[in-house]
Amino acid sequence: MRILVVNPNTTASMTAKIGAAAQRIAAAGTEIVAVNPASGPVSIEGYYDEAMSLAGLLQVIGEHRDVDAVVLACFDDSGLDAARCLAEVPVVAIGEAAFHMASLLADKFSVVTTLARSVPAIEHNLRRYGLAARCARVRASEVAVLDLEHAAGPARARIDAEIGRAIAEDRAEAIVLGCAGMADLTAALSAQHGLPVLDGVACAVTLCEGLVRLGLTTSRLGGYARPVKKD
Amino acid sequence: MRILVVNPNTTASMTAKIGAAAQRIAAAGTEIVAVNPASGPVSIEGYYDEAMSLAGLLQVIGEHRDVDAVVLACFDDSGLDAARCLAEVPVVAIGEAAFHMASLLADKFSVVTTLARSVPAIEHNLRRYGLAARCARVRASEVAVLDLEHAAGPARARIDAEIGRAIAEDRAEAIVLGCAGMADLTAALSAQHGLPVLDGVACAVTLCEGLVRLGLTTSRLGGYARPVKKD
Amino acid sequence: MRILVVNPNTTASMTAKIGAAAQRIAAAGTEIVAVNPASGPVSIEGYYDEAMSLAGLLQVIGEHRDVDAVVLACFDDSGLDAARCLAEVPVVAIGEAAFHMASLLADKFSVVTTLARSVPAIEHNLRRYGLAARCARVRASEVAVLDLEHAAGPARARIDAEIGRAIAEDRAEAIVLGCAGMADLTAALSAQHGLPVLDGVACAVTLCEGLVRLGLTTSRLGGYARPVKKD
Amino acid sequence: MRILVVNPNTTASMTAKIGAAAQRIAAAGTEIVAVNPASGPVSIEGYYDEAMSLAGLLQVIGEHRDVDAVVLACFDDSGLDAARCLAEVPVVAIGEAAFHMASLLADKFSVVTTLARSVPAIEHNLRRYGLAARCARVRASEVAVLDLEHAAGPARARIDAEIGRAIAEDRAEAIVLGCAGMADLTAALSAQHGLPVLDGVACAVTLCEGLVRLGLTTSRLGGYARPVKKD
Amino acid sequence: MRILVVNPNTTASMTAKIGAAAQRIAAAGTEIVAVNPASGPVSIEGYYDEAMSLAGLLQVIGEHRDVDAVVLACFDDSGLDAARCLAEVPVVAIGEAAFHMASLLADKFSVVTTLARSVPAIEHNLRRYGLAARCARVRASEVAVLDLEHAAGPARARIDAEIGRAIAEDRAEAIVLGCAGMADLTAALSAQHGLPVLDGVACAVTLCEGLVRLGLTTSRLGGYARPVKKD
Amino acid sequence: MRILVVNPNTTASMTAKIGAAAQRIAAAGTEIVAVNPASGPVSIEGYYDEAMSLAGLLQVIGEHRDVDAVVLACFDDSGLDAARCLAEVPVVAIGEAAFHMASLLADKFSVVTTLARSVPAIEHNLRRYGLAARCARVRASEVAVLDLEHAAGPARARIDAEIGRAIAEDRAEAIVLGCAGMADLTAALSAQHGLPVLDGVACAVTLCEGLVRLGLTTSRLGGYARPVKKD
Repeated sequence: MRILVVNPNTTASMTAKIGAAAQRIAAAGTEIVAVNPASGPVSIEGYYDEAMSLAGLLQVIGEHRDVDAVVLACFDDSGLDAARCLAEVPVVAIGEAAFHMASLLADKFSVVTTLARSVPAIEHNLRRYGLAARCARVRASEVAVLDLEHAAGPARARIDAEIGRAIAEDRAEAIVLGCAGMADLTAALSAQHGLPVLDGVACAVTLCEGLVRLGLTTSRLGGYARPVKKD
Repeated sequence: MRILVVNPNTTASMTAKIGAAAQRIAAAGTEIVAVNPASGPVSIEGYYDEAMSLAGLLQVIGEHRDVDAVVLACFDDSGLDAARCLAEVPVVAIGEAAFHMASLLADKFSVVTTLARSVPAIEHNLRRYGLAARCARVRASEVAVLDLEHAAGPARARIDAEIGRAIAEDRAEAIVLGCAGMADLTAALSAQHGLPVLDGVACAVTLCEGLVRLGLTTSRLGGYARPVKKD
Repeated sequence: MRILVVNPNTTASMTAKIGAAAQRIAAAGTEIVAVNPASGPVSIEGYYDEAMSLAGLLQVIGEHRDVDAVVLACFDDSGLDAARCLAEVPVVAIGEAAFHMASLLADKFSVVTTLARSVPAIEHNLRRYGLAARCARVRASEVAVLDLEHAAGPARARIDAEIGRAIAEDRAEAIVLGCAGMADLTAALSAQHGLPVLDGVACAVTLCEGLVRLGLTTSRLGGYARPVKKD
Repeated sequence: MRILVVNPNTTASMTAKIGAAAQRIAAAGTEIVAVNPASGPVSIEGYYDEAMSLAGLLQVIGEHRDVDAVVLACFDDSGLDAARCLAEVPVVAIGEAAFHMASLLADKFSVVTTLARSVPAIEHNLRRYGLAARCARVRASEVAVLDLEHAAGPARARIDAEIGRAIAEDRAEAIVLGCAGMADLTAALSAQHGLPVLDGVACAVTLCEGLVRLGLTTSRLGGYARPVKKD
Repeated sequence: MRILVVNPNTTASMTAKIGAAAQRIAAAGTEIVAVNPASGPVSIEGYYDEAMSLAGLLQVIGEHRDVDAVVLACFDDSGLDAARCLAEVPVVAIGEAAFHMASLLADKFSVVTTLARSVPAIEHNLRRYGLAARCARVRASEVAVLDLEHAAGPARARIDAEIGRAIAEDRAEAIVLGCAGMADLTAALSAQHGLPVLDGVACAVTLCEGLVRLGLTTSRLGGYARPVKKD
Repeated sequence: MRILVVNPNTTASMTAKIGAAAQRIAAAGTEIVAVNPASGPVSIEGYYDEAMSLAGLLQVIGEHRDVDAVVLACFDDSGLDAARCLAEVPVVAIGEAAFHMASLLADKFSVVTTLARSVPAIEHNLRRYGLAARCARVRASEVAVLDLEHAAGPARARIDAEIGRAIAEDRAEAIVLGCAGMADLTAALSAQHGLPVLDGVACAVTLCEGLVRLGLTTSRLGGYARPVKKD
């Protein structure tokens, strides 16, 4: 089985890191193909970057047809609808993946993401997926996406602090880490804070493997109909 | 006052038609500047076209800074969040404009749009804006967007039929026409069917005029913060 | 264009103040006719006052038929349904007007109103309009309505404090001032706190101008059917 | 125990009929005092009549202080909030009473009311009470309120037809009769259609008896604070 | 009239206490039959105990057929659906009873229950009944169920503290006590804190009396159909 | 990896069928242990059977501790909360599994289950999980559970008819089969009707495999705390 993991920003080091995290969790026999667009924003921080990344993101999906499933590795799940129209195989975004998996482990989870400006987009996704009632709160750690690349002390301390507040103030029973760059941290954070901590990339890989094994792909009956050919 | 009306597809005849409709409803002293991107889809029919139109749409907004407000003239309101980040002036999309105005005239309205594949995107917007409870149903007339350019008999007959069903089956008290190309039809349809019929372009123009007069523009405190400069 | 602005309480000085605020924001060519009932409560503070103001409010609407639209200038929007049945022209209440306009500028707004006893009525309105999801919180400043008439220091300080809390605690991105008597304050508060601050009277006037220009009025198909003649 | 039953319209024959229905269901030792305002609409058919009935309704409540509870006998529950502010004793409206009692007998109920114009007001009440999710549909039989006074064949046939549709189309498991004038019909309709059929007057009387026995009355902490004295 | 009050745990002293509270509030002529299962958990603290109590709870209901109504006296309302299928008479659980009665007295109430582990079950019930919007917050006092048997100082102090927080932080206008063992405390707590305080056992008894007087019982049309006979 | 699949009814032939379906979809290296309680209902048809199956269901979970995950193979997901408290490993019920997986393939799905009496329980689960907004409708085929054991013509024809109605009337884009006994049918139904058709057992097995691989298990911080030891 081959799973295409698309990092929608153009930072190759982050693509490599995400690809390694995905490969680590993948089943024996699953090959991870991690890619990023040739051009576009170097990081996705807010609605404008999301919009500017879409053409590149869709282009790489169109160029990698020999895969069994696609993971969209940006936590705001941007481009998910268009990617489902374009791809013939199942497409899972890392935000939705983490929300669905957390819902199997806890009544209520909180999300800890990077920047405050990303919070409304995540809240909208949760409401659209139907899982807003399962999310106690979306919290911003104010760690910049690219700072996670060399996540020494201060980034980790801020994430710890937000998890602590999520448990105490939100009564969260699980934590979803809201950025593709946080994948390394789950096991340590889970042990430290005593509750499940989920990373979207890992969740999305296992969900894709499941969907492929089930022989299922996106429905064409509604909004995910194949794109209309334009002249 | 100058209002930029952006048709996100590249069909210039539709841009002209939308611009004329906007100018017709505009107050004395309001100048409408109707534009479309240089490249991108010739019509927006579903999520893939939406995504592929965004870079062009944002580019024309960035190129027209000497305006007082921006109208996004695609009924699925695609690009609205990114446009609000980018523009210094208020941005109103035609879907939300029509939904808000219809809410001042009726307890429940129905939407009549073009293609079935566009229905889920409109439903998501309604839920996100909070106005899903005000919308009885989103209906597709199965009239293709560009067919509305030369809307002779069959297109009009299909729209009539859906309005009739909306009144009888949905108990709709008002109708929102769900496509920028339907602007010419409102007065005739309203008279014929005996209820308010709203066109988003006209609604958006008056809302922009109001916001400009009130001296208000998009908040920068949340997701609509200005884009982060990338290297 | 003539817009009837109805202050539902009998305090003429407040009517004059509201009328002046409305005229200030009105387009050239719009005439504001500000009125209040001959008898009824001197201020609307809670459900009982609301109920006792309705007969007078409807009487003045019935007596002023030569207008193009009606603004109901009480923030709890009391009488709106009955006024829509009675009037042949569009009717916009100042609470709903501010909520709809704020929804075009921010993902989430908070309301700062006068008395705590008014909070539930405003919350019910927000839920009914569908916009509860857009409102972070309804806050009471505990400033009495008539104290706003001579709004020296303490009233302003309390409003400032609540706006500060709305930004810090509710993550509000815009503020709706929840009383017709606060109209003077919006520009100063907006500049001071760095976010859009909306007054319902101003919003309602521009929405009425828009609806009149669009040639639209209240639907008669549902609950807003004309009153049944009684013997 | 004395329970004041207020018919908010001025039709004395309907007051007598409602009073008799209330007395029939009341416990031994409960005295029903059935009253109506001296002036106001002869029937409540829509928002305008509701508004015009409130001053009279509140006056009769104010004049009957020697009671242990108040029943508001109009199915749209108009004046409930103001009556709770005014009265020192519990106030129960017949719409809410029937919705709460039906929720103890069935997962989903439908409402069969008189006129279509009354449907939105009932829907708003259901949403406000929180019980909209328990109501499958609000249906109008198009029987005028005063026609129920001499409910021969056609009125009954229309109600039967709507109950049949509620069972078949809405999958309703219980029926709430949506008008104070329908109280006589519940037992016969229940036997005929094979499901619980509830009348709001009877439900409200037993709820008032329960509240009085429990020694509970309306909270003063929120919107139901006592009216502010005006000069 | 005979009302069966089922304590789903096997602690006979609690059964006696609940029975006495029920008899105290019952109307003259109502006989309370308080029972508990012969085997099962000694107290219901969380989902596992709930599940393990159901067979015993249903058995005692099946053995007491000569009653007019059934009260389920466990605040998490476990077994309510199955009991409605099994019994021929109305069944009211104490959680739902208190939520419905509180909704007649206040716009928003808070629940004060025993253990934090019980909070999610109560929140799910509120959402299912439709009354989640009426509940400001479910609070845990961390008093163990059986400690309420000899409720000296510390248990009462913790309950007082939570009621104080509910008023100050949740803006609760009424309090529902979330455990069958708290019935003795309502009058004193209500006087002390100045708002309605409700006990589910008392509420359920009066609701059962009302339903019996109204001649109504559970609908058989949906999920409450009689159990299918198994071989 | 060993996954315990619990059929909560006592029909061994159905246990074998479910076990075979689970093993068929399981990854190489996953061992399925299919069990059923020694005593309890022979099929789960409604709330009463659900309640009567719980003690047996929890007993078999308690007796099989050497597993990595548990699948509850009854579509109404009964016992899920208690099983999560009891088991040290992840527990996934087949209803929730299918709803979450369908949400990755379609905007809206419909459920086709066996008996009408089971519909409300499934609707409550959907609302509780948050996924009610994703489900267009829960439909009953009126095929009895045990009839699926020898599913010749009529059972299949009824299921076909309901899928057809789901597509035409509900605008469903995917179908969830609402009974553990329908697992054999998915591929044929999917091919025939042209949309994804999901079986909960298969979905639950792949979700369990994913959770085990991710090293995650149920949170203990909220309602899923370990059962309190009773004397």
